[in-house]
Amino acid sequence: MRNIFRLFPLTGAPILSIVLLFTACSRETRRVETPHPTFGILIHAGAGSISKESLKPEREAAVRIKLAEAVMTGHRILQNGGTSIDAVEATIRILEDSPLFNAGKGAVFTSEGTNELDACIMDGRTLKAGAVAGVKHIKNPISLARLVMEKSPHVMMVAEGAEKFAVEQGIELVDQKYFFTQERWDSWQRVRQREEQRDKEQKRPSGTLEQGIGTERKYGTVGAVALDKAGNLAAATSTGGTQNKRFGRVGDCPIVGAGTYANNRTCAVSATGTGEYFIRLNVAHDISALMEYRGWTLEQAANTVIKEKLTKLGGDGGIIAIDRQGRIATPFNTSGMWRAHVLGPDGKVVVDVF
Amino acid sequence: MRNIFRLFPLTGAPILSIVLLFTACSRETRRVETPHPTFGILIHAGAGSISKESLKPEREAAVRIKLAEAVMTGHRILQNGGTSIDAVEATIRILEDSPLFNAGKGAVFTSEGTNELDACIMDGRTLKAGAVAGVKHIKNPISLARLVMEKSPHVMMVAEGAEKFAVEQGIELVDQKYFFTQERWDSWQRVRQREEQRDKEQKRPSGTLEQGIGTERKYGTVGAVALDKAGNLAAATSTGGTQNKRFGRVGDCPIVGAGTYANNRTCAVSATGTGEYFIRLNVAHDISALMEYRGWTLEQAANTVIKEKLTKLGGDGGIIAIDRQGRIATPFNTSGMWRAHVLGPDGKVVVDVF
Repeated sequence: MRNIFRLFPLTGAPILSIVLLFTACSRETRRVETPHPTFGILIHAGAGSISKESLKPEREAAVRIKLAEAVMTGHRILQNGGTSIDAVEATIRILEDSPLFNAGKGAVFTSEGTNELDACIMDGRTLKAGAVAGVKHIKNPISLARLVMEKSPHVMMVAEGAEKFAVEQGIELVDQKYFFTQERWDSWQRVRQREEQRDKEQKRPSGTLEQGIGTERKYGTVGAVALDKAGNLAAATSTGGTQNKRFGRVGDCPIVGAGTYANNRTCAVSATGTGEYFIRLNVAHDISALMEYRGWTLEQAANTVIKEKLTKLGGDGGIIAIDRQGRIATPFNTSGMWRAHVLGPDGKVVVDVF
Repeated sequence: MRNIFRLFPLTGAPILSIVLLFTACSRETRRVETPHPTFGILIHAGAGSISKESLKPEREAAVRIKLAEAVMTGHRILQNGGTSIDAVEATIRILEDSPLFNAGKGAVFTSEGTNELDACIMDGRTLKAGAVAGVKHIKNPISLARLVMEKSPHVMMVAEGAEKFAVEQGIELVDQKYFFTQERWDSWQRVRQREEQRDKEQKRPSGTLEQGIGTERKYGTVGAVALDKAGNLAAATSTGGTQNKRFGRVGDCPIVGAGTYANNRTCAVSATGTGEYFIRLNVAHDISALMEYRGWTLEQAANTVIKEKLTKLGGDGGIIAIDRQGRIATPFNTSGMWRAHVLGPDGKVVVDVF
């Protein structure tokens, strides 16, 4: 500034005003360009046919409280300068530990009366990912997925093999009983009775294929996506899969690019719904590709993939996503999707379902 | 033409010449616009560090003959008006039945001395897909993957569950002995001895993680992509995975969008290489997305993903791909990739490795 005064001793003050005004304007411009918080976390706890009438007040309150607790835990990590990977893992662990959701404790039952869990985590900075599928004795599958990502040369491990790796990594196995909840058991009994009845009426041998997907579908999968203060994105998803599932079925949750994806160039995505359609459409990677290759916004890309492509193919569900500017999208084509977010430093928690 | 003669009785002949010339030109133009055959098939049998010196003449001849037999079988199906799905399945079955390749008979051994197979098939017309992973008693995993696609509501089944489904579908299980070949066994013994020696020297407990990928890597995965006369694309991949693999590791082969992908809007892709990198990059879907969203040619898209993105991330391998006009691409970043193709009605077989 001194040079300005020296050059124009009389007009210094007006010039200073202009400079200050210009500085203010360019700050304003910057604010307009990035009106979004520079960090944040967004979670889901499944999409499905949820109606206002069907929601029991006590259950709704319990879900809202647990979602708020989980998302606030992740937000606190980000607030304190922690990584997005740490935030999504810690958040998912809370949801896995709650019997309210179809992940970890509270997982649905397979056709054999067991609980088989899948999980996936991905780091948008390195494009590293870890996934496990069909594990039966892991309390927090998301943490095992993270160990696969960080402590093995692999991306995906399944069934007993994944559990052997867990033991080698010092993870204690839990008994299948740990995952039991009366509510899921009763729900599974109802489905089995209905299907036995149907098989009898249609004179089919029991256990034919339609049981594979199960009729009483609950998409209680949980997921989290986050952007940390360093600008790194991460995504994580965990699920007990589809009720009454058979044949070692694997859904989209542990498939990188289908149910889970993170890439610092674009966004982080976690999905929930009829997994087969999400796999066939590579839903999570497709949203990223539309942003990167077409230059679309997160909202355009996410809406197109869920509300157009997925719907056209016949799939149900939704996704949560956050981009590198902290903008979020939560499209779903079902009547509801449980979700919550906290963006930026103000700490305001938003929980929503419809 | 009669009208032309009536209108210009004297100038009819010159005008006829012009019309004929014009017709010839526009035919020429059409030929330039679509210089590619309207059907064709392309296969691979793995990429890796293959050198001219290391290729034993008898083995090279055997591989060339088997690749030619397989690709000609698929081509005959297309020639007779069959579907691309039938062509890729029949082709892969021949490669699975041969002890020369790391798929079906001739699969490499896991760290436990077992053979565990993965396969995936995808129909570009419907975007339907089927995949199996970690099966131990299925002679032709590609045919089981097709049954998953066509006879179940699922996309992916793993391990014992997938085999239960196979039995229900009338597929006879084979003993693990069926997959045994002396060559793979000896190779596995060499790897184990080398790793035991290394563990001893480094005073590590045996069975630590680096064994996961194994040092004597052979990318003998097989794959096929085809375009049929009706304009439908299909892709199929089958593998025994990575030698000495542990922990129920799943590679890219059975992951839709990573090792296998087909979409009538763009192309069909089958991959081979260090699967973890192909999963993290969603290699097959990424090539399709670059074509669809950036308008790139198959060659541009395939080269960018393999020679730039995959190489930059540290992955090795290659892909084969065919687009809806019958153009092909076969980029790889290793010293060699076994591949063969027959395009269009002339039936000329091309087999190549470098």
